[in-house]
Amino acid sequence: MAFETLITNGIIITVNADFEIIYNGAVGIAGGRIAYVGPAADVPGETASTPHIIDADGGLVMPGLVNTHTHLPMSLFRGLADDIPLDRWLNNHIFPAEQKHLRPETVKWGALLSCAEMLLSGTTTCCDGYFFEDAVAEALSEAGMRAVLGQGVIDFPAPGLPDPGANIQHAVDFARKWKNRSPLILPSIFCHSPYTCSAKTLVSAKQAAKRENVLFQVHVAETRNEPDLAGLPPGRSPVKYLESLGVLDADTLAVHAVWVDMDDLSILVRNNVKISHNPESNMKLASGISPVGAMIDCGLVVGLGTDGCASNNNLDMFSEMGTAARLHKVSRKDPTVMNAEKVIRMATIEGARAIGLGDRIGSVETGKEADLVVVDIRQPHLLPLYHPVSHVVYAARGGDVRYVMINGNLLVSNFRLTQLDGKDIMARVNAVAKNIRFSDRDECRP
Amino acid sequence: MAFETLITNGIIITVNADFEIIYNGAVGIAGGRIAYVGPAADVPGETASTPHIIDADGGLVMPGLVNTHTHLPMSLFRGLADDIPLDRWLNNHIFPAEQKHLRPETVKWGALLSCAEMLLSGTTTCCDGYFFEDAVAEALSEAGMRAVLGQGVIDFPAPGLPDPGANIQHAVDFARKWKNRSPLILPSIFCHSPYTCSAKTLVSAKQAAKRENVLFQVHVAETRNEPDLAGLPPGRSPVKYLESLGVLDADTLAVHAVWVDMDDLSILVRNNVKISHNPESNMKLASGISPVGAMIDCGLVVGLGTDGCASNNNLDMFSEMGTAARLHKVSRKDPTVMNAEKVIRMATIEGARAIGLGDRIGSVETGKEADLVVVDIRQPHLLPLYHPVSHVVYAARGGDVRYVMINGNLLVSNFRLTQLDGKDIMARVNAVAKNIRFSDRDECRP
Repeated sequence: MAFETLITNGIIITVNADFEIIYNGAVGIAGGRIAYVGPAADVPGETASTPHIIDADGGLVMPGLVNTHTHLPMSLFRGLADDIPLDRWLNNHIFPAEQKHLRPETVKWGALLSCAEMLLSGTTTCCDGYFFEDAVAEALSEAGMRAVLGQGVIDFPAPGLPDPGANIQHAVDFARKWKNRSPLILPSIFCHSPYTCSAKTLVSAKQAAKRENVLFQVHVAETRNEPDLAGLPPGRSPVKYLESLGVLDADTLAVHAVWVDMDDLSILVRNNVKISHNPESNMKLASGISPVGAMIDCGLVVGLGTDGCASNNNLDMFSEMGTAARLHKVSRKDPTVMNAEKVIRMATIEGARAIGLGDRIGSVETGKEADLVVVDIRQPHLLPLYHPVSHVVYAARGGDVRYVMINGNLLVSNFRLTQLDGKDIMARVNAVAKNIRFSDRDECRP
Repeated sequence: MAFETLITNGIIITVNADFEIIYNGAVGIAGGRIAYVGPAADVPGETASTPHIIDADGGLVMPGLVNTHTHLPMSLFRGLADDIPLDRWLNNHIFPAEQKHLRPETVKWGALLSCAEMLLSGTTTCCDGYFFEDAVAEALSEAGMRAVLGQGVIDFPAPGLPDPGANIQHAVDFARKWKNRSPLILPSIFCHSPYTCSAKTLVSAKQAAKRENVLFQVHVAETRNEPDLAGLPPGRSPVKYLESLGVLDADTLAVHAVWVDMDDLSILVRNNVKISHNPESNMKLASGISPVGAMIDCGLVVGLGTDGCASNNNLDMFSEMGTAARLHKVSRKDPTVMNAEKVIRMATIEGARAIGLGDRIGSVETGKEADLVVVDIRQPHLLPLYHPVSHVVYAARGGDVRYVMINGNLLVSNFRLTQLDGKDIMARVNAVAKNIRFSDRDECRP
């Protein structure tokens, strides 16, 4: 067997059905796919003739991380305003900044900055929703990253979209444009939420998503007062409401799903709705704690996500894994819940399933597309190594990612970006941010 | 004015009383102390004649982080067992491993590993309690780190201490040995907890601490069932119990203080007890959420800590800051609590105060001993920079620390240890861990 690339001398966290760990393992890549996973000693053929050999130096080889909820260009607003109430944060800072500063060019630079951050911290796939999503798609294409992307639909004038009435058509146009355009980009439709979209909008957007055969993303039950904000009658939860509209099915990604009760849970299960869990954003905005332990126990597919940089304030999935593992233990008063294995699944294979890519990525198995990460463990904070899964969740940081491969292409090598020009991106973002800082000056500190 | 070292071109987060931020700032160091803090343009004397000039490259210059609760040698057990109930974790893994593997040499290598991790992630001072504390003190001395260290007192045979009756004398001997031995090491007495020490032990240990004029560290109210474990009568909380024994005063550091009610809070305030808050350990062990917001509002001095590596599983104070900021927001259902400034104070000046070093370190002010950290911000995940305090808490990671100075000595330069031999320490720890792994093999996975 001839490989293009061989990753050797690693501990492979396969995330296959048995969650097999292979010590002294190797992964062979051919045609952008994983062609061999197993002991380094058993690699078929002549190792020496493989064009590219990556020595993992005893590090952890795992599936690329899947971030199931981002608003990539919002990295432009990272740390613009924190520690203030949600309405003030949105109305005095985020919405005005979006209206004032978003253009296709600024959106693209923000998205490229996010790509750089994601790549350097081991994320290979994201599921994004925002405005000017065409510019986001261009950024991801340039970065060589895998993504599911949805143009935002919302019932008020949005950046680049003064007429809300045209939003669904715009989202459909985006979906059609990016269908079959790139092997790594899957279009989607991102309908903002039950409190920013009317029933009519929600239904039309979902019908359009069905017609286009794409994922339907929607924020659901993020905050406790969402039923009020959405004008729902007493006793009608956002989940019940969405089910009544017919927008809940296996191709709907319910983002957040914090305020769900047992009835809502059975609705989600009955409709096989996919869930994106964003613990750090939910904590920082004081939204609440999603009962994802129960969701997983009920068989729901739950992926992990960071949310946008304005409410996190980073895209680091390692940090997100650690937070998820610890938060649910203290919340459920049980140190055995949300163990490291479950959290890694949530950040890889379950995330991939949640966004419709479970057959293609999310595990290190032959036949899958080669999205891989190598974590360096030759560092004081990652010693000793008793259990690799423990280190991934409780000790490793985004900065420990040494190699990142997407679809067989090496995009991070020895901690450095190979394809993106990080310096140029940072200079461009700083130029954009200069204007944002200036206009936000009047109320920039809480 | 002649400086030995000048840090220039930085954004200085002073953590002084006004929490002043100085853009384009400089810090001059002379005689191990901070001799100038202010605009780079106003540095007195000839900058060019300063022997050592550190260019912060626009990065953040802040006080060295103070970790108020560690068990440094427990890095040897990092990830040995996770996600299992506390009693099984302690009785089947940690206690046996401690009994079997701890000797002065192994403790020292574990402590040195922790020193390397702390330095590389910006911690300059720790407050530690463990067994073989003499070996821990030697490790910290070799590392050039600042610390408050207590030999452990506990009512059952402990590593190196088969006779519990001799424990207090042993702790006193340690305190006397290390008094005035090193300008950076302050001895202390670490009395484990109300459930592992009798009333007599608690009282004698506190009296000894008073006689020696050292800090008294004690775990208090960590878990909900601590009153039962300690055999307290109904209605008597651990805090009430300790007050009745006379061990609560301004030189007592109450570690964890998770299960405290309003009565306990007033007792802590009345006695001016210092608090060490360890959110990640409390979350991972599912102990609970300490009401530190209320504590700070009541005027208590609360420092931040990581706890030992076996229950965290890292010593990264940046991660701990992010967790503290987010956890209390969601727990109090209020995004305005525990803002970034408050959290930075907790990790610096308040931590210093909590362990009796508030006059010497914890802020960037003239006259203070020069414990400083420079955070690199030329990275995608730290752009743009609107508010430096936001980045420290919500976006920076331990690995972003570029320079670390303790008492005027540069111990990390351009992300590398200058004094410790990281490679040798890691090799030694791996050799120790090999034996631990072997003996823990029978029940190593949850």
